[in-house]
Amino acid sequence: MMATMSRRPARSACPIATTLDIVGDRWTLVILRDMLTGKKRFSDFLDSPERITTNVLTDRLALMEAAGLVAKTAYQQRPVRYEYAVTEMGRGLLPVLQEMCRWANRHMPETWTPPASFMEPLDG
Amino acid sequence: MMATMSRRPARSACPIATTLDIVGDRWTLVILRDMLTGKKRFSDFLDSPERITTNVLTDRLALMEAAGLVAKTAYQQRPVRYEYAVTEMGRGLLPVLQEMCRWANRHMPETWTPPASFMEPLDG
Repeated sequence: MMATMSRRPARSACPIATTLDIVGDRWTLVILRDMLTGKKRFSDFLDSPERITTNVLTDRLALMEAAGLVAKTAYQQRPVRYEYAVTEMGRGLLPVLQEMCRWANRHMPETWTPPASFMEPLDG
Repeated sequence: MMATMSRRPARSACPIATTLDIVGDRWTLVILRDMLTGKKRFSDFLDSPERITTNVLTDRLALMEAAGLVAKTAYQQRPVRYEYAVTEMGRGLLPVLQEMCRWANRHMPETWTPPASFMEPLDG
């Protein structure tokens, strides 16, 4: 698959290290959180409270697309603008995000409790 | 708690972003994997197949200790050398690692299947 070929080489065949080769940074899973909660557009992601910068956002969206986590479709021409949607592979990371929420809520009481809808098990 | 105070300021109160403020990089959770599977010493971590460098390892161990994920004890004096152990807070990240394993095994078939013992639910 093209998406797989454009990843950089895995450090090992460890499933944890291989996952971190793709999402092991401070921003990728924050952008995925936004997409899983309904955000679609570049400006939506910029509006989030973590204040990602435009160049980091551009870079991460391209890497997420190359890894197969997200797909983009043009919603406007001249200038072309894209909407982003999580793929099935990207949605499959929801349990990782849910476990991060449980851990943070348990050990860092200042963190928000996520909406119940976000914590529902993945269907399928 | 001192461990909490030495973290850098959270980007938001989002539990995902706050978790990534601590473990959002390519190496921290790889080191945690090693500790959860019995490795204790600096040289053990260097031996892992991902080939972490000594300066990155030194940096991450200090951040993990400051965040409260690991505790160190001296096992030798002159020169002093330390063993590292996961704290209860650090062990609490096991479900995050387990979900990463499930995701990688599902979407990247070239990854190793973890030992059954690693996939057992956290007690408590």
